[in-house]
Amino acid sequence: RAFSSAPITATLFPGDGIGPEIAESVKQIFREAEVPIEWEEHYVGTEIDPRTQSFLTWESLESVRRNRVGLKGPMATPIGKGHRSLNLTLRKELNLYANVRPCYSLPGYKTRYDDVNLVTIRENTEGEYSGLEHQVVRGVVESLKIITRQASLRVAEYAFHYAKAHGRERVSAIHKANIMQKTDGLFLKCCREVAEKYPEITYEEVVIDNCCMMLVKNPALFDVLVMPNLYGDIISDLCAGLIGGLGLTPSCNIGEGGIALAEAVHGSAPDIAGKVSSIRPLLIFSHVFSKS
Amino acid sequence: RAFSSAPITATLFPGDGIGPEIAESVKQIFREAEVPIEWEEHYVGTEIDPRTQSFLTWESLESVRRNRVGLKGPMATPIGKGHRSLNLTLRKELNLYANVRPCYSLPGYKTRYDDVNLVTIRENTEGEYSGLEHQVVRGVVESLKIITRQASLRVAEYAFHYAKAHGRERVSAIHKANIMQKTDGLFLKCCREVAEKYPEITYEEVVIDNCCMMLVKNPALFDVLVMPNLYGDIISDLCAGLIGGLGLTPSCNIGEGGIALAEAVHGSAPDIAGKVSSIRPLLIFSHVFSKS
Ligand SMILES: CC(C)[C@H](C(=O)O)[C@@H](O)C(=O)O
Ligand SMILES: CC(C)[C@H](C(=O)O)[C@@H](O)C(=O)O
Repeated sequence: RAFSSAPITATLFPGDGIGPEIAESVKQIFREAEVPIEWEEHYVGTEIDPRTQSFLTWESLESVRRNRVGLKGPMATPIGKGHRSLNLTLRKELNLYANVRPCYSLPGYKTRYDDVNLVTIRENTEGEYSGLEHQVVRGVVESLKIITRQASLRVAEYAFHYAKAHGRERVSAIHKANIMQKTDGLFLKCCREVAEKYPEITYEEVVIDNCCMMLVKNPALFDVLVMPNLYGDIISDLCAGLIGGLGLTPSCNIGEGGIALAEAVHGSAPDIAGKVSSIRPLLIFSHVFSKS
Repeated sequence: RAFSSAPITATLFPGDGIGPEIAESVKQIFREAEVPIEWEEHYVGTEIDPRTQSFLTWESLESVRRNRVGLKGPMATPIGKGHRSLNLTLRKELNLYANVRPCYSLPGYKTRYDDVNLVTIRENTEGEYSGLEHQVVRGVVESLKIITRQASLRVAEYAFHYAKAHGRERVSAIHKANIMQKTDGLFLKCCREVAEKYPEITYEEVVIDNCCMMLVKNPALFDVLVMPNLYGDIISDLCAGLIGGLGLTPSCNIGEGGIALAEAVHGSAPDIAGKVSSIRPLLIFSHVFSKS
């Protein structure tokens, strides 16, 4: 839909800390590029005084569901026990099942790598992020990692679909099934099933420890990577590091029904809030248009 | 005890694939360096024909317990259902609670990094490696991550003790307690308790995703890292990648009562078995002597 003449309406959550400033820059960029867009702005966050007296209102969620496309700035976690991260709450409430982070070396931005061109696709709703934890006896705690066939197939489908649509050649499923044979084993089984439907895409399986070693030695070996939640969290940050940092990587959360909520990956950086008005976060936010 | 005049007896498990060849090189190195050592050799592994008809005999374990110092080559996992990795079995049977992997840039070995000088210390007995997994209903599986106060305190004690003994200045505890508040939260609590006893060592806590990003951007930020099992598995391989690969990183498993079982970190590489007799794995194996 992007760059067509009919204006689109997108939800904007400026977020906390530097969020409002970078959101201003984003709006300015779209104005100057004459992209016909209308922003529906809602306050989700903890640091700015919410007119609604709420961290997250029902109207904010409805806005994303209606517009199907949105941008979110960084959000801090509300202070005090019992509050979950707002990032996680949004993923859960909107059923944002895949987190997509393209990562490529930027010309002119010097790091130790100039050969990164990959996309991490992370299962975004379950795994180690189940929130299920308890103390068994004093001094012994456990947490549950949940892997389901439904969520694994869904993210695998997304990964192969994405690879095909973007002319990518290979999908690597990242796992530790040599240790977690049942959970990561189920994840791999689902990836294999989907892979069979895409004979034109090369499919491989890489153990997470080996994957991290290969990424720092030779990131050009990788193309599209798909993986359970925590591995995605770790590897997407590792990859961001290869190209210079979290400020340089776009991120988009994909939900059922074609919802795309793009996000700033970096934190709310309260220490520099008010001082970053010259930042032009083109990369972070432009990604949403290629997705919707 | 090393390099003293009284000969020491050490256990040697040559292992699978290239294991016997590299073990030969090791013995040759010690002979040529005139280190007074006697090797007690046992076959633990799956690829070489075991005279004992067993993957792992009681005598092999007893040998390590008696000598308190040993070397192991790479070991493949026995084929067929129900067999656990022999690496894990040794860790479990010998209660090898800490895995220590020093990692430093080697002069003359060119990679993208020349500023790595750190040590990863991994909890080696529990966490995501509990082996506890089951299917809840069809299509829904779960695995348990177990964190105990006892094992967390033990590895934290080892890390601070190591840092002090080796003149290192900082210990970073790696975690994801923002998500796994109870399990990783307990791990951090134990690290903090131990840190208080070492006021001369700087203590910090780093979230695992952020840690991986910082490691690839600027590994010189890190000194000693201590962490739960899976994070240690991932980060130690990442760090090995920074300096050139698994063949360049020594590894030692520390057990109760001062047991030190050093190991080759790389795999058994069956494809090149019989062709690597010129390898001189000095680095991999020399580490055991600084530990015992
Ligand atoms: C802020 C944190 C809860 C979040 C996560 O762990 O998923 C972040 O690291 C990310 O990758 O979006
Ligand atoms: C071989 C495998 C079971 C092992 C592990 O996961 O611990 C290896 O990766 C290691 O780091 O020693």
